[in-house]
Amino acid sequence: MAKQEFGIVGLGVMGQNLALNLASRGFSVAGFDLEQRQADVFAAKTAGRNILTCRTQVEFLGQLAAPRRMLIMVPAGPPVDAVIATLRPRLVRGDLLIDGGNTWFRDTVRRISELEGSGILYIGAGISGGEEGALRGPSIMPGGNPEAWPLVRPILQAMAAKAEDGSPCCEWIGPGGAGHFVKMVHNAIEYADMQMICDAFWLVERLLRLPAAEASRIFAAWNDGELSSYLVGITATILAREDPQTGRPLVDSILDAAGQTGTGKWAGQVSLDLGVAAPTIADAVFMRTLSSLKSERSVASAVLSGPTPAFTGDVTAFVEMIRKALYCSKICAYAQGFQILRAADREYGWRLKLGSISAMWRAGCIIRARFLDEIKAAYEREPALANLLLDGHFASALASYQNDWRQVVAIAAQNGLPVPAFMSALGYYDSYRSDRLPANLLQAQRDYFGAHTYRRIDKEGSFHTEWFA
Amino acid sequence: MAKQEFGIVGLGVMGQNLALNLASRGFSVAGFDLEQRQADVFAAKTAGRNILTCRTQVEFLGQLAAPRRMLIMVPAGPPVDAVIATLRPRLVRGDLLIDGGNTWFRDTVRRISELEGSGILYIGAGISGGEEGALRGPSIMPGGNPEAWPLVRPILQAMAAKAEDGSPCCEWIGPGGAGHFVKMVHNAIEYADMQMICDAFWLVERLLRLPAAEASRIFAAWNDGELSSYLVGITATILAREDPQTGRPLVDSILDAAGQTGTGKWAGQVSLDLGVAAPTIADAVFMRTLSSLKSERSVASAVLSGPTPAFTGDVTAFVEMIRKALYCSKICAYAQGFQILRAADREYGWRLKLGSISAMWRAGCIIRARFLDEIKAAYEREPALANLLLDGHFASALASYQNDWRQVVAIAAQNGLPVPAFMSALGYYDSYRSDRLPANLLQAQRDYFGAHTYRRIDKEGSFHTEWFA
Repeated sequence: MAKQEFGIVGLGVMGQNLALNLASRGFSVAGFDLEQRQADVFAAKTAGRNILTCRTQVEFLGQLAAPRRMLIMVPAGPPVDAVIATLRPRLVRGDLLIDGGNTWFRDTVRRISELEGSGILYIGAGISGGEEGALRGPSIMPGGNPEAWPLVRPILQAMAAKAEDGSPCCEWIGPGGAGHFVKMVHNAIEYADMQMICDAFWLVERLLRLPAAEASRIFAAWNDGELSSYLVGITATILAREDPQTGRPLVDSILDAAGQTGTGKWAGQVSLDLGVAAPTIADAVFMRTLSSLKSERSVASAVLSGPTPAFTGDVTAFVEMIRKALYCSKICAYAQGFQILRAADREYGWRLKLGSISAMWRAGCIIRARFLDEIKAAYEREPALANLLLDGHFASALASYQNDWRQVVAIAAQNGLPVPAFMSALGYYDSYRSDRLPANLLQAQRDYFGAHTYRRIDKEGSFHTEWFA
Repeated sequence: MAKQEFGIVGLGVMGQNLALNLASRGFSVAGFDLEQRQADVFAAKTAGRNILTCRTQVEFLGQLAAPRRMLIMVPAGPPVDAVIATLRPRLVRGDLLIDGGNTWFRDTVRRISELEGSGILYIGAGISGGEEGALRGPSIMPGGNPEAWPLVRPILQAMAAKAEDGSPCCEWIGPGGAGHFVKMVHNAIEYADMQMICDAFWLVERLLRLPAAEASRIFAAWNDGELSSYLVGITATILAREDPQTGRPLVDSILDAAGQTGTGKWAGQVSLDLGVAAPTIADAVFMRTLSSLKSERSVASAVLSGPTPAFTGDVTAFVEMIRKALYCSKICAYAQGFQILRAADREYGWRLKLGSISAMWRAGCIIRARFLDEIKAAYEREPALANLLLDGHFASALASYQNDWRQVVAIAAQNGLPVPAFMSALGYYDSYRSDRLPANLLQAQRDYFGAHTYRRIDKEGSFHTEWFA
């Protein structure tokens, strides 16, 4: 019997769906899981396809064609190390491991270095698209040993989503932890995108007092325009869903406490380390934290006062203003994400191609959107673009939409409705475009109490003033 | 000759001033620095006082009374390890080292554990107050080996600033890295405080178009009221200073690019790790980053458009509105800082006394302010206060000032003037006081694409919806 072309270790839903995806494209796949029960589920779900469920590791490794190409789909962290440790004694030079989880990029760097000299090749690949994307074709961001790429390129590119122009949403990202780093930034942008949608939804629900069904229609309409994206689309679907238990919109029954798994937090920490301003990404993480304090907020709502939201004016016109605020905020949040990539590229020498990365995000992944075509075009026009905001397309969108964005932020502030993503994006925009900022005062304060010195605008050098004199 | 009571290693300005401070209070001090030149400066500056400059480490250690108590005042990081490694072969059981730098608290934990079993005692002490505070009396935040505290308490409390009620701004913080952690949070609050003052200054200068001398008078007036604080006071002084070279306000000649040394960044990262929302602190760090991109901003200012700030109305009334916005933002920023302390206390079991910490910050340190009396009082009224915002005093200040705060944010947004600290504080306030947030939609999105499940408001359990059905 011919050996299988590809192996998957870890047969949860993501692993199952990636196997089904590959089999549907004509590849032969072997699956293995340390848990017998998971293997049984997998066997039942994949029966009749070109997929082999292996009951032992020896069988699994024996069924793979050389060089053995294996995708590890287990939770990030110690489970990945455990799988590697289990497999390693039976691996030989040329075998190739791919970690497809949401792994901290420094862990990938460490694992590559631990395997160095063994001849075992290693790839850290971010995979985005959720369970549905895994089945239909996700966006895949592989990085690690460059010599491993040609060995799996045909398989991973076949498995990946295809953009409208037919190109696969999977290209080589770079060496070391580059693949997992780019996936982390993808997720951070996803955090910001979701919070911005929440900001917009909140104004529609709490200021305009429109019912969920109407909000759903608004998001559906937005999804036909320049905001067209997976997340806006599923928002329309979600808001339209009725709760069979109450007969009311399902969102009304869902607890307003958001979870998080780590990538957003890491991106915030990395942005601080790299010295990149990413306030909208950080705020999106902080808002999940605040949302999770449900009982504390309930107490606070009785103690802390605020205005009663009241809207007077043209609802349809204000909906369009919210749309523009969302679009402007989105530009700023993506700009922050790409600035993190740019800074990491300089720090680690990965030679990231930002245009190629935005192209890879056009389909398959959670942040897929028409918008990413524009970002791709921006980096094609100017590969060394200092900041996305400076691209002509985005700069002119910001120019024409900003008054409405400002108005939406102003009205939200006056009505006591939190729109942290809209606000921090506006703060980012207004700070970045300011030739002058009040940091002259701040640096004077630092010189006053800490003799940190300052520079001057009219000559070179470091200066210190004896402020007490 | 009697041996010296206290030794200082590292004779930069901070070390010099702390020695002069101690000598002025009747303690005998020995100083040592690996750099001969630094020792010479020290010897000259301290001549005639009860201070001995030692030229060798052997001499230094020989001149200290047992148990030898030594304060290390060198830059945080490897230099501290180098000093410890140099001293260690000649140290004996009972000797006591204090690291007085802005040390990452995990480094302090590591150093304590490295000295464990040697009998050498170790304290990590945050010292705030800058060069002036070091001389006149800083705020000192010591943590580490609890058995070390009684041995240096009289010296450190004598060295420290005294609050108006006479109590020293130095109390034992807790074990391990507690002292340096609390200092890190102090500095993070300082970052936020400085950015909030910049927000206020910017509106005064760019919206109201008042000259620096007038801005100085405004800050001086604020310094007589509930905003009374070191930072507001020095702001008034700074804005009044004339540049002898131009005859114009000195701030106008200072480059608007702020530096940073690490504690703000660490606090942002720690808040993300602990799951504490600290958007105003993070934004203050991000704003320093943005300020440092001076040439990029100059380019951007020509590409990205915005409104021309224009104010119509009563200037005096608007100045008062800015004052209220600053006060409300300040409450929120301090609340965030204290929430970080609270979360760390739970995580590490330090048994921090938040009231005592606020008392310690009332004098000597950079954030010293009348305001800290109110925080101390709040934690005295309710030691288990879930959040500073919930204290009656602060809640009612927020209630009565918030309309002006909202108006200031709205006007800044409409006029294109960045006030990131005012905005993120308002977002924090409005989110924290919301019984309901749009995170229900967000969690539904997570369940849609990642099967992350959600909870319901009307019954216990985890739920998943088949959204595609």
